[in-house]
Amino acid sequence: MTLHTRLGDLLGVAHPILNAPMGGGDAPGVLAAAVSEAGGLGMIGGTTAGGADWLRDQIGVVQAATSKPFGVGFVSHLAGAAGLMAVALDAGVRVIAHSFSDPTPFVADAHRGGAVVICQVRTLDDAKRAADAGVDVVTAQGTEAGGHTGEVSTLPLVPAVVDAVHPLPVIAAGGIADGRGIAAALMLGAEGVWLGTRFLATPEAGVPVGYKEQVLGAGPGDTVLTEVFDLAAGIPWPAGVRGRSIRNPFTDRWHGEEAALRAERRDSRSVDDGIAANPLYAGEVSGLVTELEPAGQIVGRLVAETEAVLRERTAAILRGV
Amino acid sequence: MTLHTRLGDLLGVAHPILNAPMGGGDAPGVLAAAVSEAGGLGMIGGTTAGGADWLRDQIGVVQAATSKPFGVGFVSHLAGAAGLMAVALDAGVRVIAHSFSDPTPFVADAHRGGAVVICQVRTLDDAKRAADAGVDVVTAQGTEAGGHTGEVSTLPLVPAVVDAVHPLPVIAAGGIADGRGIAAALMLGAEGVWLGTRFLATPEAGVPVGYKEQVLGAGPGDTVLTEVFDLAAGIPWPAGVRGRSIRNPFTDRWHGEEAALRAERRDSRSVDDGIAANPLYAGEVSGLVTELEPAGQIVGRLVAETEAVLRERTAAILRGV
Repeated sequence: MTLHTRLGDLLGVAHPILNAPMGGGDAPGVLAAAVSEAGGLGMIGGTTAGGADWLRDQIGVVQAATSKPFGVGFVSHLAGAAGLMAVALDAGVRVIAHSFSDPTPFVADAHRGGAVVICQVRTLDDAKRAADAGVDVVTAQGTEAGGHTGEVSTLPLVPAVVDAVHPLPVIAAGGIADGRGIAAALMLGAEGVWLGTRFLATPEAGVPVGYKEQVLGAGPGDTVLTEVFDLAAGIPWPAGVRGRSIRNPFTDRWHGEEAALRAERRDSRSVDDGIAANPLYAGEVSGLVTELEPAGQIVGRLVAETEAVLRERTAAILRGV
Repeated sequence: MTLHTRLGDLLGVAHPILNAPMGGGDAPGVLAAAVSEAGGLGMIGGTTAGGADWLRDQIGVVQAATSKPFGVGFVSHLAGAAGLMAVALDAGVRVIAHSFSDPTPFVADAHRGGAVVICQVRTLDDAKRAADAGVDVVTAQGTEAGGHTGEVSTLPLVPAVVDAVHPLPVIAAGGIADGRGIAAALMLGAEGVWLGTRFLATPEAGVPVGYKEQVLGAGPGDTVLTEVFDLAAGIPWPAGVRGRSIRNPFTDRWHGEEAALRAERRDSRSVDDGIAANPLYAGEVSGLVTELEPAGQIVGRLVAETEAVLRERTAAILRGV
């Protein structure tokens, strides 16, 4: 069976389920390959310290493992995004995702390369800007998402974006980890879903085992949306964007004391030393993620759960109509 | 037709749609009567400056207008909640909702009075506490809700609460204003929905016309979750609970400057004078609320929208299965 939507048709996949192209090596080729081979759309997180060489290698990993479609996503306000996109297009990648910046500079080249362009947004204004720029798909990311995200929740954001960019297909991101969340996103008008946290807790994700264990152990209230890791690292993000991480001693110490953290870093740079300053980016949906599971198996389970929820809930609620 | 769920059966209503029992007179008898008469469950917000006399009057308004079930909800950490609940039970109210406190002190009396007890929560721990206290229904309120709320979004919170309090029915609150949102909440496992902001923009809501116009004009990113109105008014709320309001000059001035606001109030109390310090409590879903509409008409439209979304989306997604 398939979860049939316009997005799946556009991307050429059976199920409109994407893993988030998490940066820093968290979403490597082995993860993307497993998601694509299971019928979803696997995404490589193309923004890493490894640059073009790493990206070329990871694309090769996917292409060696599956002939199915896959994509690469970028943290597009950081330097080098255009060059990395060119690497992906040259290697035959046909789905490109941009995030955290105006997609306008990227759209024409991506289309010339034959790629579908996805743009991830967190506000209605950015959704309209992406549509005006000519992207093919908009991902609306809620504040409950892990890692860098905005301030509006998925449930009110997605329908507003669907209305604003109609008839472009919209992908829902943030707060989704099981078939209930996928079915809910599809009811909101989303044509697909984009899951980060769920795919962190897989053997394929490129984060340490201890990080995965923290995700498995965290409850829905154990994360915090904070600027402190970005201040410590000195990496700029657009206004309104902060990072959602599982709370740790570093967030306990500095969240709410950002002015002091800025001063500390200016004076000594000492705050970016040591493990405490390492973020454990994860979404509120960590509370629903309790088992490490292979990525392909997750896709299959999500599809089965979504089908069951759609069929059974709808029949029960509308019975006798 | 009905939107059939276990909650509707328990409450004796056709559609498991409740208006939030917003305090301060925002949810008076005339609003509750309209929602109940249309087949939902109307709720009076029982916590107001008018005390027992106001509540008795409003219950009378509902009883004169409809013979259908309705309820009363309380801001239960404030003094007087037990006495107000007794007023409601004596007047024959058979649905009681508590919020913002441990429901344990209220449950036995409410059950003795023959009432169904709903407890609204914002965390998984509070959901478990409510279930242990013997409540009949749990409302899980996401951070996107208007007015006083918590920090976790509805989409990840509701399924976690459903799992934690099973088999108690769960109502989803926060981020819902149309049939798409209701269908999504039902997919998450909620057995009903609780809408505040949508019912503020009605002739029946007890807020000034200018307030309603602000709700109609606000976009999804125009609210802020803030402590500043509570600090100005000197009213305490539980840890982790702040108020979501449409941004205004008062939030622009003080949000993020809470320490200075505390000092200002201690020194002069001047900050709670004037209209600027009046909150415009509303949810992120304000972005989906664009027309003033009678409450009963809203219920009818929501039911029709929900049915259409459930039927059409499910059929399209599962086609050929």
